[in-house]
Amino acid sequence: MQQVQRLAVIGVGLIGGSFALKLKQLGLVNEVVGCGRNSTNLNKALELGVIDIAYTDPTLAVAGADLVVLAVPLGSIAPIYQQIAPFLAPDAVVTDVGSAKASVIAEIAGLLGECPAQFVPGHPIAGREQSGVEAADSELYQRHRVILTPLSHTNEAAIAWVHALWQAVGAQVSSMSATYHDEVFAATSHLPHLLAFALVDMLNEHPELGNVFQYTAGGFRDFTRIASSDASMWRDIALQNHSAILKWLDAYQAELAKLAQLLQTQNGAALQQLFATAKAARDAHIVNRTS
Amino acid sequence: MQQVQRLAVIGVGLIGGSFALKLKQLGLVNEVVGCGRNSTNLNKALELGVIDIAYTDPTLAVAGADLVVLAVPLGSIAPIYQQIAPFLAPDAVVTDVGSAKASVIAEIAGLLGECPAQFVPGHPIAGREQSGVEAADSELYQRHRVILTPLSHTNEAAIAWVHALWQAVGAQVSSMSATYHDEVFAATSHLPHLLAFALVDMLNEHPELGNVFQYTAGGFRDFTRIASSDASMWRDIALQNHSAILKWLDAYQAELAKLAQLLQTQNGAALQQLFATAKAARDAHIVNRTS
Repeated sequence: MQQVQRLAVIGVGLIGGSFALKLKQLGLVNEVVGCGRNSTNLNKALELGVIDIAYTDPTLAVAGADLVVLAVPLGSIAPIYQQIAPFLAPDAVVTDVGSAKASVIAEIAGLLGECPAQFVPGHPIAGREQSGVEAADSELYQRHRVILTPLSHTNEAAIAWVHALWQAVGAQVSSMSATYHDEVFAATSHLPHLLAFALVDMLNEHPELGNVFQYTAGGFRDFTRIASSDASMWRDIALQNHSAILKWLDAYQAELAKLAQLLQTQNGAALQQLFATAKAARDAHIVNRTS
Repeated sequence: MQQVQRLAVIGVGLIGGSFALKLKQLGLVNEVVGCGRNSTNLNKALELGVIDIAYTDPTLAVAGADLVVLAVPLGSIAPIYQQIAPFLAPDAVVTDVGSAKASVIAEIAGLLGECPAQFVPGHPIAGREQSGVEAADSELYQRHRVILTPLSHTNEAAIAWVHALWQAVGAQVSSMSATYHDEVFAATSHLPHLLAFALVDMLNEHPELGNVFQYTAGGFRDFTRIASSDASMWRDIALQNHSAILKWLDAYQAELAKLAQLLQTQNGAALQQLFATAKAARDAHIVNRTS
């Protein structure tokens, strides 16, 4: 596989840091340039050996890089792409790690006139409660999925290279359209996050019930774990993928209306059927993976 | 503390079995009678030393017992109480472990003419994915809550004894009204279970998305863990506590409508505020307990 000569990681945290760390371990990268606004964090990344060179200015960081990973918050991907574009080497491949894809692609196309053929949109499905470069872990991507959502005009060699690199760090890589990606993740990730935030928000200091959290146990803790996710990250996701999320939120509200109807009519048989089908589906498909 | 001379556990599974096992370990019970419909399970309980004597007929099992624990499915508590009532020793104390309380109390009062003063309604907040007597664990109740919902005419000595026994097996015991209990658990346990079942049901073999479960990760796994719960148990809970559940489902639907409105208007500031408040509340109140 083609080694990365100079990898520029824009946004050195858990996601970008873990990718760089594993490529280094595998000898698949010659030099890692890290870029971030926070120099304390960059010094930490240098100390930990995640990066070799640090910049706070992305236009300097990408100079001479053959691979650029945009591991910044969703709302900053396109603006930073616009900022670095004039400084990229002509053959440099750019990829990102945003959890919504169609909006990022459209925003980049809007700012740059068209979506560059050298840009391979990506989304690693790996996150942890801890974030920041201190949490970077060369094994983060083992047995995790990475989704690529290239466009029809995306450079084939660029796609293949990004695909191979993610595979090398341990990920199982799939490709799909940005639209399908956004629907799937609206339904399976973005919607559940909103549902968990909404439940905790509703119950928090409820005037009628008082502090009900004291009576909760493991079921509630697991159900709401994702409500401890970063608020500004989820604001960005909610805004960027709002139309797909609204569609699935709407479908879910219809599902709840059906459930309310079954409760109102005390239809025990239909309730049991619904629960049993859900349980069977989950037991069949959701392995109790440890991550 | 007053020792139990003869404990009758009607329904020998995880909940009743763990209670009996710990009382034995502490020397707080002289003899444990187990009762169930399945003799294979009763033999297993005898082998494991959870019970000393086994009956399949509850009227025989309660003879001479000073404490009876009804650890049967929610829908069977009142009918079994009616069945055993003529065979109970006059001073025998009866308690149950049902996760809805007002309906059970009303049903017992309906079948027996009034709710007996010797009946102490209870609800241990401890469950595991495993069930059955094989899963019985003397440490199950350590650091778990048990809620008692006595009535105004419930015998004070009976309440104090049941309270002390649950405390002895490691639980943190609180008392509250059955109505408040049912509201709290409708909001914090029954509603989340229905939400998880509904999400898995909606996404299961969705005609538009196909098998989306393959793209899910740890967040979805934890959010839907409770959708792997027993379907008939949750049918019973949904039916028995349907009015409180409907009330909180309704409040939740209003919360989702508010969220949909924020998405529609792309109100990033309000979305971030809602997420941040929920995150702060969860981080403050929901400890990452291991059970």
